[in-house]
Amino acid sequence: MIHTDILIIGAGPTGLFTVFEAGLLKLKCHLIDALPQPGGQCSELYPKKPIYDIPGLPEILAGDLTKNLLEQGKQFQPGFTLGERAETIEKQVDGSFVVTTNKGTQHQAPIVAIAGGLGSFEPRKPLIDTIGNFEDKGVAYFIKNPERYRNKRVVISGGGDSALDWSIFLADIASEVTLIHRRNEFRGALDSVERVQELKLLGKINVITPAEVTAIHGDNHVEAVTVTKDNQQTLLETDYFIPLFGLSPKLGPIGNWGLDIEKNAIKVNTLDYQTNIPGIYAIGDVNTYEGKLKLILCGFHEATLMCQSAYKRLHPNKKFVLKYTTVSGINGFDGSKKEAPKAVVKAIV
Amino acid sequence: MIHTDILIIGAGPTGLFTVFEAGLLKLKCHLIDALPQPGGQCSELYPKKPIYDIPGLPEILAGDLTKNLLEQGKQFQPGFTLGERAETIEKQVDGSFVVTTNKGTQHQAPIVAIAGGLGSFEPRKPLIDTIGNFEDKGVAYFIKNPERYRNKRVVISGGGDSALDWSIFLADIASEVTLIHRRNEFRGALDSVERVQELKLLGKINVITPAEVTAIHGDNHVEAVTVTKDNQQTLLETDYFIPLFGLSPKLGPIGNWGLDIEKNAIKVNTLDYQTNIPGIYAIGDVNTYEGKLKLILCGFHEATLMCQSAYKRLHPNKKFVLKYTTVSGINGFDGSKKEAPKAVVKAIV
Repeated sequence: MIHTDILIIGAGPTGLFTVFEAGLLKLKCHLIDALPQPGGQCSELYPKKPIYDIPGLPEILAGDLTKNLLEQGKQFQPGFTLGERAETIEKQVDGSFVVTTNKGTQHQAPIVAIAGGLGSFEPRKPLIDTIGNFEDKGVAYFIKNPERYRNKRVVISGGGDSALDWSIFLADIASEVTLIHRRNEFRGALDSVERVQELKLLGKINVITPAEVTAIHGDNHVEAVTVTKDNQQTLLETDYFIPLFGLSPKLGPIGNWGLDIEKNAIKVNTLDYQTNIPGIYAIGDVNTYEGKLKLILCGFHEATLMCQSAYKRLHPNKKFVLKYTTVSGINGFDGSKKEAPKAVVKAIV
Repeated sequence: MIHTDILIIGAGPTGLFTVFEAGLLKLKCHLIDALPQPGGQCSELYPKKPIYDIPGLPEILAGDLTKNLLEQGKQFQPGFTLGERAETIEKQVDGSFVVTTNKGTQHQAPIVAIAGGLGSFEPRKPLIDTIGNFEDKGVAYFIKNPERYRNKRVVISGGGDSALDWSIFLADIASEVTLIHRRNEFRGALDSVERVQELKLLGKINVITPAEVTAIHGDNHVEAVTVTKDNQQTLLETDYFIPLFGLSPKLGPIGNWGLDIEKNAIKVNTLDYQTNIPGIYAIGDVNTYEGKLKLILCGFHEATLMCQSAYKRLHPNKKFVLKYTTVSGINGFDGSKKEAPKAVVKAIV
């Protein structure tokens, strides 16, 4: 059982910034995310795209925003349960909550902050009947650890940035990379498309289009796939089959937690972004209230007010005094300290 | 008469970010600030101090935050009335407002956003009876245009960063710089104190401590000041006398605009941060509501929601659709366009 002060469901920008604001109040956070890395949509869907409306950052790539937010919170040593989806929540007699993931990992905290964005990202899967039998046995919808594919044969299918970029990345790692797409045309960043073209001409990526993987073979693990092209079927031996057909967000199991839901979003008040269940908050794109805007900068504000409210719940008798980071600095849980250079008092002689 | 869509009182971080959010909605802004440059406290009180709690910016100097915010909004071509204090507001028959400054400049807009921070910064003045007679006639409490002092004799008094930094800056411009402080000890950044010490030894700054300027002389302009040190009075000829004794914020004339005020702050609702007077909003440190935190990041959120509300007031029949900058880019009023690189659709052969 993992114990923490604030359990954050969702490691997108709002969830990551919560770590920082909680840390200023000496509260520790642990984050659960269905994706294999932190950053939410910013890391998974558009890491190389610029965002122009983060205040004070006229232009930043979404992936760099994630890096900055991780850096900003790292001295508060957040814990992470990644690649697992928060599934159930149970209120304990002491008022705390236990949240269990689809893989059975249990987390206990007095405060739960749902920063779930559009929901947990579920991979779109190819329509192959037996695919479920091969999941984690050669079939993967995310690439968590590229080293797993070293000197292995890999078949990737898909026609977007993920399929292009992972084909490029694995060309240097895997013994054989085959990229299969049901159209001739790929849709992605110009340099990614051009790089795959180069690697194809160098014989480092085998590209088959227009074609589809229509069957998977193997005993206890993928051994081959059937590739259908122009109504012709070919057997292609491979160790891994990685369909990268995109992700679709689903509110998922959180929808059954007894929270007031309106149009796929969780209703909160605008005082502290608490839901109808005391101790459970919802912040960022996952919540709704009158006038709600689904903007990252609004999630930052909501996270900040939510942490104040959480602090008061946890310490009802302590008087809270807001301190400015410029004045009081940042005291990390890891013993680090950041602070503004102090003024000196010195005679000029 | 200056005309604009949103008249912003206060050019601190919240006011500056309002320009950007309004610009996304094709609304034009004009800012009034009592200080001679934009940035509010960040530029005037602590430009060289780091801020650690701007989301996505693990550490940024307050002066650089101002620069970034100006950069972020510049394509929306905000207007500025600087060095003037918003003094009176009058509602017009057409529902718009006319705001007049202490120097008589008039501004008309259908929407007024008060982003006044702690209030307008008023200089602390030395206790010299006749000082009022010399204001703008050789006595200045801010340095707006350093070139005015080229080849002139300047007396600066004060013992903090402003006095130190301007003495250093003017040492290369003025024909003679005298720095007078009532104590021997200065209080400021270590490198500033050390630099003044060096310039003193080089004969480029004349430092007199512990001493005070106790009288000002001249016909229609400053010609000399009396310096009192150890109860001895000396006449010192000079062209300018610049007391830099710090600033104190005052809500000032805005307090008489008929707004609901509570503890020196303007009461607003949390739906759109509108005051009791429809069409007048208050955002950032100047406002108050239950749970209010005086943090820059909260001002950014408030500015954003406020702009949406202003848009609806101005265009009650238009259906508003939130667009993401990553998707739709930024169309500047100056004809500039920023946008994410588009995906290409291209065959790999």
